[in-house]
Amino acid sequence: MRIDIDESAFARNDEIAAATRVLLRERRIFAVNMLSAPGSGKTTLLEATIDALCGRVRCAVIEGDVATTHDADRIARHGVPAVQVTTEQLSASCHLDARMVQQALDALPLDGIDLLFIENVGNLVCPAAFDLGESAKVAVISVTEGEDKPLKYPRLFRVADVAVLNKIDLAPYVDCDLDVIEANLRTVRPDLTVFRTAARTGEGLGPWLDWLRAGVAAARG
Amino acid sequence: MRIDIDESAFARNDEIAAATRVLLRERRIFAVNMLSAPGSGKTTLLEATIDALCGRVRCAVIEGDVATTHDADRIARHGVPAVQVTTEQLSASCHLDARMVQQALDALPLDGIDLLFIENVGNLVCPAAFDLGESAKVAVISVTEGEDKPLKYPRLFRVADVAVLNKIDLAPYVDCDLDVIEANLRTVRPDLTVFRTAARTGEGLGPWLDWLRAGVAAARG
Repeated sequence: MRIDIDESAFARNDEIAAATRVLLRERRIFAVNMLSAPGSGKTTLLEATIDALCGRVRCAVIEGDVATTHDADRIARHGVPAVQVTTEQLSASCHLDARMVQQALDALPLDGIDLLFIENVGNLVCPAAFDLGESAKVAVISVTEGEDKPLKYPRLFRVADVAVLNKIDLAPYVDCDLDVIEANLRTVRPDLTVFRTAARTGEGLGPWLDWLRAGVAAARG
Repeated sequence: MRIDIDESAFARNDEIAAATRVLLRERRIFAVNMLSAPGSGKTTLLEATIDALCGRVRCAVIEGDVATTHDADRIARHGVPAVQVTTEQLSASCHLDARMVQQALDALPLDGIDLLFIENVGNLVCPAAFDLGESAKVAVISVTEGEDKPLKYPRLFRVADVAVLNKIDLAPYVDCDLDVIEANLRTVRPDLTVFRTAARTGEGLGPWLDWLRAGVAAARG
């Protein structure tokens, strides 16, 4: 059994991603590709982040899901533009690719955006293989997933610029040692920047927000 | 961007799966394909299940992971045969396919097995598309993943024979209503059998064990 992913299809993806990267740079938009397993708390993290940055950084979100518009609906309630991509009817439903993002960008007011979040399909494997033209990749991992996940799904953490260790408020209930997760992250990627957050309570959001503000400032030039 | 999955590759997968199904029926083995997102507690559930059935039902496990042999090592400590398939070097690392399982079966003592668990790669999307020759598909979902996951990843829950709603001991800490998750599961698949368990504490394992024992009895004929 082989799934033949045509190399030329990857090349075509990279071409579109490169064009998106140029477009975003011209518009001075800092674009963050958020990757994680299902249920790591990405959407809750984005909701808290948007509220915290509100007014000073103009945010927008592209939501990737296999089905439903739940997440775009949640984001829109926070008063920022949100576009939902549902992958169920597309040829490969397990990840976002550069063309899906390119099409979603057409629906966004690019002149009014400083910070664009692209929330990928919840999946620790496939999305890591696709460049979307983003400025940075952020891997989100929940403490409830277990300490070994960075070792078991190394590629995502290897390509990430930053990791957010989320739901730290649940650590006492799941026999999870945050230092062990962080050591496992560094086994895969020694220079990885790791933020510890509890998006639900707001704990630890400060350094994450500072990192985003720095990215936005750098994109403004 | 298209990923071209050759239809003939799916047909070849189904052929191998059909041969595996015949083999397992001849050997009177009840084979369960366990599917979930990363970190749902599948391995802990298997450890508790193996201990509970110990002696009366002879178990074995095929472990699928992108990388590491952690899970096969954990299972082997419980005194049952365990084979690890690591998909990282294979053409498609995001799921198990029928050929991987066929090869793993060669390494197992089939005459001494009543109940075979196939723990798939942690991924709510891709594994649902591949028949492995199993007797039944079990979808495991953790309460920490959020109430909406059955709606957002419908295919897995549509093809599953049974769902295990795991980590119910954490429900009070994550604002999760078990009845809402179960209603969402039934929206996708109205006749789905749902077990509620906390593998770590042993809560709720009884009906799940009874379902497995019934499957083993049926396979014995």
